[in-house]
Amino acid sequence: MESAGQVIKCKAAVTWEKDAPFSIEEIEVAPPKAHEVLIKLIATGICRSDDHSLEGKFAAVKFPVILGHEGVGIVESIGDGVKDIKPGDKVIPLVAPQCGKCQCCKDPRTNRCLTRLKRQFGLMSDGTSRFTCRGKQIYHFMNTSTFTEYTVVEEMAVAKIDDNATMDSVCLIGCGFSTGYGSALNTAKVHPESTCAIFGLGGIGLAVIMGCKIAGAARIIGVDINPDKFDIAKELGATECINPNDYDKPVAEMILEQTGGGVDYAFECVGHAETMLAALHSSHFAFGTTVIIGASASTLSFDPMILLSGRTLKSSSFGGWKSRLEVPKLVSDYLAKKFDLEKLVTHRLPFQKISEGFDLLHSGKCIRTILKF
Amino acid sequence: MESAGQVIKCKAAVTWEKDAPFSIEEIEVAPPKAHEVLIKLIATGICRSDDHSLEGKFAAVKFPVILGHEGVGIVESIGDGVKDIKPGDKVIPLVAPQCGKCQCCKDPRTNRCLTRLKRQFGLMSDGTSRFTCRGKQIYHFMNTSTFTEYTVVEEMAVAKIDDNATMDSVCLIGCGFSTGYGSALNTAKVHPESTCAIFGLGGIGLAVIMGCKIAGAARIIGVDINPDKFDIAKELGATECINPNDYDKPVAEMILEQTGGGVDYAFECVGHAETMLAALHSSHFAFGTTVIIGASASTLSFDPMILLSGRTLKSSSFGGWKSRLEVPKLVSDYLAKKFDLEKLVTHRLPFQKISEGFDLLHSGKCIRTILKF
Repeated sequence: MESAGQVIKCKAAVTWEKDAPFSIEEIEVAPPKAHEVLIKLIATGICRSDDHSLEGKFAAVKFPVILGHEGVGIVESIGDGVKDIKPGDKVIPLVAPQCGKCQCCKDPRTNRCLTRLKRQFGLMSDGTSRFTCRGKQIYHFMNTSTFTEYTVVEEMAVAKIDDNATMDSVCLIGCGFSTGYGSALNTAKVHPESTCAIFGLGGIGLAVIMGCKIAGAARIIGVDINPDKFDIAKELGATECINPNDYDKPVAEMILEQTGGGVDYAFECVGHAETMLAALHSSHFAFGTTVIIGASASTLSFDPMILLSGRTLKSSSFGGWKSRLEVPKLVSDYLAKKFDLEKLVTHRLPFQKISEGFDLLHSGKCIRTILKF
Repeated sequence: MESAGQVIKCKAAVTWEKDAPFSIEEIEVAPPKAHEVLIKLIATGICRSDDHSLEGKFAAVKFPVILGHEGVGIVESIGDGVKDIKPGDKVIPLVAPQCGKCQCCKDPRTNRCLTRLKRQFGLMSDGTSRFTCRGKQIYHFMNTSTFTEYTVVEEMAVAKIDDNATMDSVCLIGCGFSTGYGSALNTAKVHPESTCAIFGLGGIGLAVIMGCKIAGAARIIGVDINPDKFDIAKELGATECINPNDYDKPVAEMILEQTGGGVDYAFECVGHAETMLAALHSSHFAFGTTVIIGASASTLSFDPMILLSGRTLKSSSFGGWKSRLEVPKLVSDYLAKKFDLEKLVTHRLPFQKISEGFDLLHSGKCIRTILKF
């Protein structure tokens, strides 16, 4: 990295177009404008949503782009008017910003922020980018862009965290962990002694298990077609695991039989219509709640009569956490050892080996890979 | 009516087969067996579900059958072992029985009863019918069968109501009113000052409006393509009404504009996939709840991303009321003038004119027709 005036030159993994390999490039990062924060990243996770975006599954993602959204770093500098954040602060950039002033930010029922939603995806509030490479504008991603040594994010997309935070697996609080954990605690509101089923035992599903366990669920059933995930699922709180491929009948039918009528809470952490339906059908006909978490562009089709008996189907983003307020608390809970993020981290790589990290994601042999800068 | 020994001969409207016209026949009603109750009906409503059943839309309905499920009557006699109900009692037969002993009956989250669900649809617990006509067994319907001067129902499908109850529009508490009213109060849990939209202003939709009003909703938006329903909707509590045909854009878009982002609670009371989707899309993206009430055999298809922002889709049957416990309370509330059932009754006919009642249902000119015995 060299600094030229206020523009920073650094390395970033640029995705020039849909499906293109990551290209480690020297980019220019413009200084933060008013209410913006420049962050030096220390670590970033690789999440399935990065991969979906790379594959062009999300129409809002524009290329060329710097992907990555699950990071942790240290504030390098701040723009005019930034309050409560100063250079040297440890921070997590927020995929779900919180302006604190809009109707939704003031409403306890939601963690969505209208201010950010009104603005253009992939650009800062003023409609421009802070990234350029080889003379071209590079788009931001999910208010964060963490596959770069330096990023600029808006003040409302920064959570200041504990000065004592270790700067590694804590990055998972920026997306995967919080999404799964909050889906159990905030969205489903899992109650003590309840029965839960979790479809898909990747990073999100395992974090759901951690949430169900801390909520006091009596039975936590992990479901995955990859039995390599079962040991870690059980270590984190699953009381039993099911591989749908081991049975002739549909997995929902198995779960109905094994639970005497269905689970209180079913979580879909894959993003396929098929697993969403399996989750819905495995929930108790009279009071089961199904939470779909996996982002998916597919269509969900079912007979609405399945709900008529008393089922609920719901979802949330970022686990329902009010990000600026609650991410710091989650970090403190982590430091107080209320949950163990280390269990979710199977691989660590230097940032420049990002492509290897995505290969691991595709291999099914990894829960989370952390890239270290 | 003549009584031959313990078998009662009386008039009933028999539906011999799918789509057949009602045939007023003399039938034989066998005496109640153990834990059964023989009821002399005084009045019955005509509900859309009767019509759907007539049309063969519900696979569980077997022919020949005596339809009707929204009745009120007086106990004529009881079988062995019946407790808490005696001849002369005013009662409402229950489409949603409550044994009081099963896992679900003991669970405050649901009003479904496992005991009844385990048994065959259209027959009593012992697997037989109490109705015969011209030597043929006639099936029961929805635990009730009210299109007959006398019916036999199981003890767990009978609610004893106030001795002072007027025996007319109170029959609507047996289905339509309670379903709509409870969907607002129990299923959605409408909160004070909230905004609600009700799609379909038939008997159910109007009862939802009554529930929203008593819950203290600030805005209650009625939606129907038949503007003839608007006056009664407003009389019952709608603050405004929308006819989707009056606008070029989709009704959900209209509602999003007029409510600054969508309603807190949307209710679908039609039973079409199209209106279910309109309701879902008109609910607030971050915290809206959609309750589907209309029974339908169609398929509901949508992009699950519409839920990801924080929407909830749910349903219930019979408005979530624990029937044996709560129907008597609803009758008392009616007698105490907490709500006005009369507003829902547009037509009254002698029982034998049942076909005219169904013509009125099809004409769209009626809310509820009550048949008087």
